[in-house]
Amino acid sequence: MLLSQIQGPGDLKSCSIEELTPLAADIRKFLIEKLSVTGGHLAPNLGVVELTIALHYCYNSPEDKFIFDVGHQAYVHKILTGRMDRFDTLRKHNGLCGFVKRCESEHDVWEAGHSSTSLSAAMGMALARDLKGEKHKVIAIIGDGALTGGMAFEALNHIGHEKKDLMVILNDNEMSIAPNVGAMHNYLTKIRSDRNYLRAKDEVEQLLKKIPAIGGKLAKTAERLKDSLKYLMVSGVLFEELGFKYLGPVDGHDLPGLIDSFKQANNVSGPVLVHVLTTKGKGYTPAEEDAHKWHGITPYKIESGQVLKAVGNPMYTEVFGQTLIELAEQDERIVAVTPAMPGGSGLLKFAERFPDRMIDVGIAEQHAATMCAAMALEGMKPVFAVYSTFMQRAYDQIVHDICRQNANVMFAIDRAGFVGADGETHQGVFDIAYLRHIPNMVLMMPKDENELRHMMKTALEYNDGPIAYRYPRINVPGVPLDEKLVPIPIGSWEMVRDGEGPVIVAVGPMVQVAEEAAEMLKREGTHTAVVNARFLKPLDESMLLSLAQRAGKIIVLEEASQAGSLGSAVLEFYAEHGLSGLDVSLMGVPDRFIEHGSIKEQLQEVGLTAEAVVREVQKYRSGQKYAFGKKA
Amino acid sequence: MLLSQIQGPGDLKSCSIEELTPLAADIRKFLIEKLSVTGGHLAPNLGVVELTIALHYCYNSPEDKFIFDVGHQAYVHKILTGRMDRFDTLRKHNGLCGFVKRCESEHDVWEAGHSSTSLSAAMGMALARDLKGEKHKVIAIIGDGALTGGMAFEALNHIGHEKKDLMVILNDNEMSIAPNVGAMHNYLTKIRSDRNYLRAKDEVEQLLKKIPAIGGKLAKTAERLKDSLKYLMVSGVLFEELGFKYLGPVDGHDLPGLIDSFKQANNVSGPVLVHVLTTKGKGYTPAEEDAHKWHGITPYKIESGQVLKAVGNPMYTEVFGQTLIELAEQDERIVAVTPAMPGGSGLLKFAERFPDRMIDVGIAEQHAATMCAAMALEGMKPVFAVYSTFMQRAYDQIVHDICRQNANVMFAIDRAGFVGADGETHQGVFDIAYLRHIPNMVLMMPKDENELRHMMKTALEYNDGPIAYRYPRINVPGVPLDEKLVPIPIGSWEMVRDGEGPVIVAVGPMVQVAEEAAEMLKREGTHTAVVNARFLKPLDESMLLSLAQRAGKIIVLEEASQAGSLGSAVLEFYAEHGLSGLDVSLMGVPDRFIEHGSIKEQLQEVGLTAEAVVREVQKYRSGQKYAFGKKA
Repeated sequence: MLLSQIQGPGDLKSCSIEELTPLAADIRKFLIEKLSVTGGHLAPNLGVVELTIALHYCYNSPEDKFIFDVGHQAYVHKILTGRMDRFDTLRKHNGLCGFVKRCESEHDVWEAGHSSTSLSAAMGMALARDLKGEKHKVIAIIGDGALTGGMAFEALNHIGHEKKDLMVILNDNEMSIAPNVGAMHNYLTKIRSDRNYLRAKDEVEQLLKKIPAIGGKLAKTAERLKDSLKYLMVSGVLFEELGFKYLGPVDGHDLPGLIDSFKQANNVSGPVLVHVLTTKGKGYTPAEEDAHKWHGITPYKIESGQVLKAVGNPMYTEVFGQTLIELAEQDERIVAVTPAMPGGSGLLKFAERFPDRMIDVGIAEQHAATMCAAMALEGMKPVFAVYSTFMQRAYDQIVHDICRQNANVMFAIDRAGFVGADGETHQGVFDIAYLRHIPNMVLMMPKDENELRHMMKTALEYNDGPIAYRYPRINVPGVPLDEKLVPIPIGSWEMVRDGEGPVIVAVGPMVQVAEEAAEMLKREGTHTAVVNARFLKPLDESMLLSLAQRAGKIIVLEEASQAGSLGSAVLEFYAEHGLSGLDVSLMGVPDRFIEHGSIKEQLQEVGLTAEAVVREVQKYRSGQKYAFGKKA
Repeated sequence: MLLSQIQGPGDLKSCSIEELTPLAADIRKFLIEKLSVTGGHLAPNLGVVELTIALHYCYNSPEDKFIFDVGHQAYVHKILTGRMDRFDTLRKHNGLCGFVKRCESEHDVWEAGHSSTSLSAAMGMALARDLKGEKHKVIAIIGDGALTGGMAFEALNHIGHEKKDLMVILNDNEMSIAPNVGAMHNYLTKIRSDRNYLRAKDEVEQLLKKIPAIGGKLAKTAERLKDSLKYLMVSGVLFEELGFKYLGPVDGHDLPGLIDSFKQANNVSGPVLVHVLTTKGKGYTPAEEDAHKWHGITPYKIESGQVLKAVGNPMYTEVFGQTLIELAEQDERIVAVTPAMPGGSGLLKFAERFPDRMIDVGIAEQHAATMCAAMALEGMKPVFAVYSTFMQRAYDQIVHDICRQNANVMFAIDRAGFVGADGETHQGVFDIAYLRHIPNMVLMMPKDENELRHMMKTALEYNDGPIAYRYPRINVPGVPLDEKLVPIPIGSWEMVRDGEGPVIVAVGPMVQVAEEAAEMLKREGTHTAVVNARFLKPLDESMLLSLAQRAGKIIVLEEASQAGSLGSAVLEFYAEHGLSGLDVSLMGVPDRFIEHGSIKEQLQEVGLTAEAVVREVQKYRSGQKYAFGKKA
């Protein structure tokens, strides 16, 4: 059967197993070609081609529920469920989502983006199934990296106890995004390398026969001994101890083998874990050779494997990584902590330079945060480098362990604001709102890379509790860098452009947007002031008071949830100080999830542009009054 | 040595082991007497008397770091570190904290209140120690219940990998607060019941000798077989697989045995786990017999074990539990989910009535939330019953899995607002701020129990996404209950008292406070209006607009973080609608952590009283102007 003939999973079922093999090659070719143009998660998807074919061959989606952990490895699933023709739009605005997406297909039953949620989802679906008296299969497909996330263990613990019929496919490719760390990883490696355990089974049985007839008090012991051979013959004793039937390991690129394993699994009642060994990037040499680099990739040349990188200034991430090395050279207390994102967080060079002071905890944001608190209480200066969206996992630890104990933890919050193609699961638009109300927290955001560097120095010299700097997933503007790093007074804002007209209070990259708006307005004769609100908390109270005295209009401009972020803080401040009569407008991210596209498109979609700021000012200037209770 | 002679842990060290035994009895007597008056966590502390003595005997606090998970089992530690004379003030305002508290003693090196943080803390302290070239011990004391929290596993995984010198004492009492669930629990039970495994060791060695001489291809297998005996002889293979040296199980009430085990543990390099079996409530029969009830207890009569309960109306928790049964009788879709708090959440009767629809996941808030999302997507109506403070653990899952997928999950948020004696780790004052900015969330709070019941019906009939009702840890006011439950229109507020003067917009129990203030003001001739802002999200926009037209002054009164909660939402709404010139005051919880005491004292401390509201209104009435930028 040709790939182009597959309209849905039903078409697979009419194939013989022999016919499926060439299909795998076709799918790989399709992925390598399409992604060379659009970019996307190539390596993870090349790794699960046979696995996904086998799943759709053996089970009946959507009655049987496939739950893909993280969901960026569901491209093959999308291909097999009638979405092949949309791959030109992959991860683009209004295009095919890079993750599982319920509104795209009835075969997409669970959405993710963050890792380690699939086992909990599977348990929920199995519970619902049983309560409703239904009979379908529930199958979670989870990578070995995602298994280190605490919530995956919470789910394993619960599933193993409740004994629901439920299948977990452990897609073991020895890495999450970066190579894995952790004892669980070591354990899986041991299983991998001990595959001859399986072959030893016969030998062991022979050996047992040689033990002379046993009676009396040794009989029970012999029974136990036999029991203990489970440890020898079944590699997955850890999973067995947690209440799962363990099957595997099975070669994830051997279709007949996979199909056999699934048949075996079907005969198990209660939870079963099938351990599948896959190779990330399988079938495309450059991706096989450097699966980390090819995890999520920009467009590339197929033949050479050359990645087409946009030329431009470095990313904020790189400036962070480089500056942290400079600071760490001078201050031994600095330790960098990453939850499985050493590359994404710009810390690879730091890790080379300071291997002992670079701690990758695996996908474990909660542990990372609390561990940082303890290091700080012991006099270190840990930097928790984490994406805004993933830091959500550590909210309680930030409240309870870091802020409540007022520990000197530094946060480097990357991907703050819109993130582009990863879309709604990854937008970093909530962190101001979820951090601002926590006592003791100091929160900054720079307008450019030079300021980021000063903020990093500020954080290092601050010893009164937790302090965070957040920065966006964009290229830096390319301003000159000061040689000497000087702490910025805590809570001080910067008037970057004075003017007698309305004032735009802006944060991070929005300062530049505000400046553009001010330039446009200047041409019309309006001299707008622009304030760089580089501290989200605490606020610059004296500047706010002086703005209240002079400005007829204040616009707060931020690439963050309009509810609860800086605009809100400004309003609270004025209310607290009894300053009525101020005309304050909030421009932020509205109260809905913003889907994938380019960052520019996302900003346009929500009206965070210079043009929109100009319109807001013009409305005020023209003396245009609001209709009561409604903006005109 | 007499207990009264112990000034600090140093005094213990001069004792012989024999002298320590009567000390244990003295400590138990002290605890039973003191707590009969103050109340507190009796059963957990009675369980760790010998363990704590052994720790202070064998190690040198504060150089060696004792990290108590949760920290409510540190009373014995407090007694041994010079705080015996403060137990009359236990958990009272300005008194001895019920948890570990750094400002109380240099022996308190890590604070908690939420569970499962101790392993991460231990890892952080061990890392800091090694980086600083220090040599002390780091010892985490964690219960078996806390081990089910995902972050504990994240830490185990990391610790087992890094191989730092670090000691974990697993205080296995077969329960967290309620009896434990989960595969880990089953596993530990197996170890407990298989203690004769240890005795079998000799027998096994004998047996092995009987295996005839082995050569050739069977040699390697035999080697593996021997290896596999680890599984037979060492019970803790699961921990061993995760990279720990496992010691135990040891009787936690046998002082010499404990001291021996610690000596053994000291000889281990790398992480070691000592499995200690304890009995919650040990030495006080009523507490031993019902450790769940005696976990945290109000004052009691020592002889009879009779608990002195304040007479009064039922708690909101009970009304919730009872009403949920009524609703579940009529609607099969309802499933209750609790993270190890079936009793605390008022669900014991529900569990009896609907055992299949009551799911206790153990201490696993993340898993609970995501599992609820999946059940909801499959057509169930799960109720996630959780304390406000513990729900913090599930923030990411609420954003990413529940709200982003707009799943019909109902949240019963208990202990919203101040919680009294548990103090700063448990205050439920952040949930409005951390939920309000999440798209798709609906959030309610009732003014009384009758309204709570209607809200529960509202939530059940709402099918457009997640919906939450929050309620406080207090007795209900005792209003009459409507027979028929009727959904409240989403986003509708209630004018509970009209008046032409200022308007107080209040939430939950603050509605009653506002009414009291209004009564007091009425006597002065001011007719204050009171609005019951029963929806925190969405707001009642038409009421807000009408208030803007009529009210000269609006006071928003809430027992929640002033930053980011309802007051903030009201200000945002008016800013968004261009309604300047409104005089809005916010009265909420200020930007700091509020310590233990009674709820009344906590409310007074932050000025959430009728008197304070009256003063705020008087200030406005008297035309008293604010000094610029500062409240007069």
